[in-house]
Amino acid sequence: MFPKTNEVKVMRDPVHGYIHVEYQVIWDLINSREFQRLRRIHQLGGTFQVYHSAEHSRFAHSLGVYEITRRMVNEVSGLKELSEEDKITVMCAALLHDLGHGPFSHAFEAITPVKHEVYTQRVILENTQVHEILKKISSDFPDKVASIIDYTHPNELLNQIVSGQLDADRMDYLLRDAYFSGTSYGNFDLERILRTMRVRENKIVVKKSGIHTVEDYIMARYHMYWQVYYHPVTRSYEAILHSLFKRMKDLYQKDPKQLSELKMFLPFLQQKDTITDHFKMDESAALYGFTLLSESNDPISKDLARRLLDRDLFEYEDIHDNQDLTRIKKQVENLGYDPDYYVITDEASQRPYKPYSGLEGHNIWILQENGQIEELSKVSDLVSAIVKANLKEDRKAFFPTH
Amino acid sequence: MFPKTNEVKVMRDPVHGYIHVEYQVIWDLINSREFQRLRRIHQLGGTFQVYHSAEHSRFAHSLGVYEITRRMVNEVSGLKELSEEDKITVMCAALLHDLGHGPFSHAFEAITPVKHEVYTQRVILENTQVHEILKKISSDFPDKVASIIDYTHPNELLNQIVSGQLDADRMDYLLRDAYFSGTSYGNFDLERILRTMRVRENKIVVKKSGIHTVEDYIMARYHMYWQVYYHPVTRSYEAILHSLFKRMKDLYQKDPKQLSELKMFLPFLQQKDTITDHFKMDESAALYGFTLLSESNDPISKDLARRLLDRDLFEYEDIHDNQDLTRIKKQVENLGYDPDYYVITDEASQRPYKPYSGLEGHNIWILQENGQIEELSKVSDLVSAIVKANLKEDRKAFFPTH
Amino acid sequence: MFPKTNEVKVMRDPVHGYIHVEYQVIWDLINSREFQRLRRIHQLGGTFQVYHSAEHSRFAHSLGVYEITRRMVNEVSGLKELSEEDKITVMCAALLHDLGHGPFSHAFEAITPVKHEVYTQRVILENTQVHEILKKISSDFPDKVASIIDYTHPNELLNQIVSGQLDADRMDYLLRDAYFSGTSYGNFDLERILRTMRVRENKIVVKKSGIHTVEDYIMARYHMYWQVYYHPVTRSYEAILHSLFKRMKDLYQKDPKQLSELKMFLPFLQQKDTITDHFKMDESAALYGFTLLSESNDPISKDLARRLLDRDLFEYEDIHDNQDLTRIKKQVENLGYDPDYYVITDEASQRPYKPYSGLEGHNIWILQENGQIEELSKVSDLVSAIVKANLKEDRKAFFPTH
Amino acid sequence: MFPKTNEVKVMRDPVHGYIHVEYQVIWDLINSREFQRLRRIHQLGGTFQVYHSAEHSRFAHSLGVYEITRRMVNEVSGLKELSEEDKITVMCAALLHDLGHGPFSHAFEAITPVKHEVYTQRVILENTQVHEILKKISSDFPDKVASIIDYTHPNELLNQIVSGQLDADRMDYLLRDAYFSGTSYGNFDLERILRTMRVRENKIVVKKSGIHTVEDYIMARYHMYWQVYYHPVTRSYEAILHSLFKRMKDLYQKDPKQLSELKMFLPFLQQKDTITDHFKMDESAALYGFTLLSESNDPISKDLARRLLDRDLFEYEDIHDNQDLTRIKKQVENLGYDPDYYVITDEASQRPYKPYSGLEGHNIWILQENGQIEELSKVSDLVSAIVKANLKEDRKAFFPTH
Repeated sequence: MFPKTNEVKVMRDPVHGYIHVEYQVIWDLINSREFQRLRRIHQLGGTFQVYHSAEHSRFAHSLGVYEITRRMVNEVSGLKELSEEDKITVMCAALLHDLGHGPFSHAFEAITPVKHEVYTQRVILENTQVHEILKKISSDFPDKVASIIDYTHPNELLNQIVSGQLDADRMDYLLRDAYFSGTSYGNFDLERILRTMRVRENKIVVKKSGIHTVEDYIMARYHMYWQVYYHPVTRSYEAILHSLFKRMKDLYQKDPKQLSELKMFLPFLQQKDTITDHFKMDESAALYGFTLLSESNDPISKDLARRLLDRDLFEYEDIHDNQDLTRIKKQVENLGYDPDYYVITDEASQRPYKPYSGLEGHNIWILQENGQIEELSKVSDLVSAIVKANLKEDRKAFFPTH
Repeated sequence: MFPKTNEVKVMRDPVHGYIHVEYQVIWDLINSREFQRLRRIHQLGGTFQVYHSAEHSRFAHSLGVYEITRRMVNEVSGLKELSEEDKITVMCAALLHDLGHGPFSHAFEAITPVKHEVYTQRVILENTQVHEILKKISSDFPDKVASIIDYTHPNELLNQIVSGQLDADRMDYLLRDAYFSGTSYGNFDLERILRTMRVRENKIVVKKSGIHTVEDYIMARYHMYWQVYYHPVTRSYEAILHSLFKRMKDLYQKDPKQLSELKMFLPFLQQKDTITDHFKMDESAALYGFTLLSESNDPISKDLARRLLDRDLFEYEDIHDNQDLTRIKKQVENLGYDPDYYVITDEASQRPYKPYSGLEGHNIWILQENGQIEELSKVSDLVSAIVKANLKEDRKAFFPTH
Repeated sequence: MFPKTNEVKVMRDPVHGYIHVEYQVIWDLINSREFQRLRRIHQLGGTFQVYHSAEHSRFAHSLGVYEITRRMVNEVSGLKELSEEDKITVMCAALLHDLGHGPFSHAFEAITPVKHEVYTQRVILENTQVHEILKKISSDFPDKVASIIDYTHPNELLNQIVSGQLDADRMDYLLRDAYFSGTSYGNFDLERILRTMRVRENKIVVKKSGIHTVEDYIMARYHMYWQVYYHPVTRSYEAILHSLFKRMKDLYQKDPKQLSELKMFLPFLQQKDTITDHFKMDESAALYGFTLLSESNDPISKDLARRLLDRDLFEYEDIHDNQDLTRIKKQVENLGYDPDYYVITDEASQRPYKPYSGLEGHNIWILQENGQIEELSKVSDLVSAIVKANLKEDRKAFFPTH
Repeated sequence: MFPKTNEVKVMRDPVHGYIHVEYQVIWDLINSREFQRLRRIHQLGGTFQVYHSAEHSRFAHSLGVYEITRRMVNEVSGLKELSEEDKITVMCAALLHDLGHGPFSHAFEAITPVKHEVYTQRVILENTQVHEILKKISSDFPDKVASIIDYTHPNELLNQIVSGQLDADRMDYLLRDAYFSGTSYGNFDLERILRTMRVRENKIVVKKSGIHTVEDYIMARYHMYWQVYYHPVTRSYEAILHSLFKRMKDLYQKDPKQLSELKMFLPFLQQKDTITDHFKMDESAALYGFTLLSESNDPISKDLARRLLDRDLFEYEDIHDNQDLTRIKKQVENLGYDPDYYVITDEASQRPYKPYSGLEGHNIWILQENGQIEELSKVSDLVSAIVKANLKEDRKAFFPTH
């Protein structure tokens, strides 16, 4: 029912040593065109504009999430006991969870209101190579895989493996982004986390002896956010992306013909995109589109596209109140720019860990020596301090100064 | 004359820790559009099809070559004594030496007969941002920089720093390609090489006490060639690229209109490409072009383009004689493919070190304890053995089997 | 006045790449017998009983503290401006700050009431090779060096470099202990800390842009304490050491002749130890002493010494109140052991950072963008949370169970 | 018959991540006093006098050899099929193979003619904790374990795992010595070697696809020999050790009473050493003995012992002929030293790989694609070149110059 490859296939990976594949369905999914497309989408959106070596793709990350999941279901006591079908389902979900991403992730959502999660579901469930491969297992297998990504699979453990506050996705991206950016912040002891993981009361938990490793993981998240993900230069690049996509949408609404050359974007502007349009919309297409836009007649999109290609980014400033913003807008107008596209604000604020009351499976649970489980912030002084701390927000405006 | 940045700028780099910039001209070059374009060109052509994490760009590599050069002219006794102008000239040359690369490097030369070295010269000498920045130093400064890349600068030491068998270019790419591919083969002790480098008789030499480190570097080259650069899957991808470019050229010669949609390739097919056409021809443009081709009416380019996008690569086989080749061609014809595009052969053969008699500056020289210098293979038993060994060639055919 | 070595000497070091020596006085100190003695004293006392690879010595650590200090006075703006004499004084102090350590550090203080800091002063100021070497610089140079280690040098910056909450000592040991124990917890970005260090108001400060790196360093301390330094097995080994030294002292007070074979310990038991006795009292001497004790007639020291040699350590248990302790003592008596030597309690409690009001130079200071400096916990939400958190204490008893 | 520990025990190790123990017999052996003694013997004799951080012990190395062996018998196809008893026997042998080492390894053999291999056999077969633990498995189990170390076990595969030119011992020490010395030379891709290992014709072989990894391993050996193991400073330290042990032997033969204080050495000088004497003769005992000797009345042993403790080593010079040696001896006599103890010569010469005709199991075998196996140098151009090369010898004299 679940055929294996004739020998274990391996792929060298700097984060995990090797990615191991032993099921034919996994191997086929990796070789599917929709999965190969992820090679053409950066994992970190605009971050490689700050950390020039962070040029890795969602392809590499997706393999990593799969590999951690594979190890969890093979090595963690309580998950090892899952049925073979459950194991394969969750490994497929881990591999495929990012399929729906478009170029530059969230910024792209300024063109199309459809979230990447929706596209992921569509790629799994509609007429694609991925869908064909999954269906060969059984007719309801695509649905099962999709339901894990949706967090609605009846076996909650499977959902928790892929999405939670200590899931395969986050563990891979912290390690991977640290490796490729060349920072040490994202490192934590994955081996020890896997070794101290257990299952209790239908939840993935970590033994008390691993609590400091979990604290270290929480801190890794904290530092990666501030040093890498929320770096102002990353946000500046994304602000311009946002403005450019917004500009295209506005132009299209006024006069669709202006954008007739930009075939790759049209289906999205028309909100008639098929799964094939989505397939073709990778970062190559977007960047080539920017090259075309950098020669267009519309001065705003021409300028914004050029800025993206040439890394001529916006400056930034902390915004404390509306006066700050008004002043900046005036400045920008004086330079001849339209503040609608040339003054972008965003807010970065994160807590590296939050206990949820509704979504208990998302929490991190610690297995006490007496066999009870407790939510992390109840037993870690450090995490408790962070949960209670009044973490400042960071609101910034991005705008040109010349 | 050579203004400095107001403080030393640094960029985090996993290979060198940090890239350090203290001259304004370097900073301006990094921020030029032609240099930023290198972010859109993979360092290793098709290698990321084998080593999925080897997705780094020529941008990162070029910064690394610059950084090693910067350290050489600041730390190596004999180079520290160069004039400030010579130092800056060679740092600029190191930074810019790869500017002329097109997408997928050598494969692209199947479309245009112009070598990337020629484009590098043009970007430095013609009307570009890079040229403007260099000219601000002095009117002949662009020529000086270009001459180092050309190996014709009157100060031979400068040429040797950038091109030789122990140059900043090779040292960076071995370390960098090893890091990003996740293999350990390319590692060698850069610190010790820099520490044992000296200058004698107008040559860069290495002290005897560093000879084992140099041997280790030679072995790193040897292993990287076989494990990474000449990996058959890399060569398979490049074989298809070559065939696709050849097909486009053939189609264009028969009937140019067929390719009218592929605006990015036309100037090269017409052999009328300007430096702006070259600027726009990055991997995004090429890949988007392949997306268009994968929907074209020509079945050959349609199929080849799809293979590249979906990583549906050719199989390969060792070729010992013409019979092997004839047999394979027949097989391929039986499958309905045109062997002109569907059977590609190449030969991989490399010696990790060769002593040249004409180009003595390219050799590696060892400084003996008595003050004499000797060519490496004269004093290293190991290298001598390799130079004399009858290293086998590896000739392969690449072709589809389904 | 400060002669240099004829070329820069280097020593390979896995933490710093190389240790660089350019002054003859540093080179001579490294080669002095008192400094070479540090090779015979483990850096981490009993920790190698838990992390078997943490077998590094105070010799290696002392070189590391020197190297960080050397970099600080050469690279940090505000320290680069120190006089050559101040720089050399602080480099000597960094190198020599651990000279006074005896075997197994604090445990040894159960034999002799003299603290290792006092011995360090004596080795620098009394009749030793180290003293001779320092005196060659000037007659008051030994006193200057000693005063930094004592935190009484008139130039407070020098004291802060060697002792503070962000000093060369702590930075080296976190990185080094992490490397040799094979844990990742102690890692932090030393390069970035050095790059963002400045001097303001006679204090070493860190620029705001480095605050997350400092937070990461604080967390590294936190984790190393719990995972490595306060690991219960380390404490168990040290508990037995403490008991054995105490037993020797008690035996000696009753009847000195009993210990006549243990020549290495006698001067300390008599409290008549000279600096030569201290020189000879390294871990080899102590361990050989334990070998002799393991064959002695006193059953307690015989048993305790054997336990240390054979790693037959005590078990441990959390102590919540006196009842716990009474119960354990009874248990141990029932096994036939004397609780005075066989039930040892200790308390581990640490805050990875504490703001002091008296010792302001010990605090970590952040340089705001407006030029003001603020104590770390005032500007870091994370550190503030930790300073305010009610960190639990960890009180344990160590005792045999068989 | 082979009880398991109640859960898998792990020990953090920087080379292998973790050492995994699942059999009680392995856990008991690790906790035996004879195995714990290995913590008191450096892995690399005098090498830490050159690479100050190479302070690791034979304890850590022995765990590493065990771990590689454990992986081989669990992961390598052809070894996975061994009986449980064979697997445990070879894991025990791997763990225990270095038990017989005395302090400073080969130098110690100047005192006692007994080789360390003989002691290893004795510790396994005589009245020791190790012997008791092994005997609990079965009465002939100690003999079986010993026979592997002796290369006489009837199942030749077991012998090859522990001793050969690609065995667990060498693979661990190359990686470990590289890590702790801080050099990169010893690195090679252990994962890939394990992945490409197979068994054919009762030999451990490596698949053709792993040949470059094996070449890299051979080069790692080559470089470690010259950069680390045969470093002249290591050899200088060992030359003095050799002279001091020789001097003790000579003194003892003339007048045994002179050495009556040196109880630790007496049984060996008398050639009446028991296995308990061997147990007590660790590096602590030897070093404490040197401390005593450094205060003795014999000026030669007093001086040599002091040189070892204070690292006041001999200088060295290449020896080309007897004239060189005669000249040096005269020099040394002129300084007032006895050349018998003060001029030591040694020869370093190594080939990183040699094909043996008698001991075929020691060779490295490559499994061709056609299923045939070939000895490595027959199929590797590189190794063939090295085997044929005329590698120079390095003969040096070590002597004092002041």
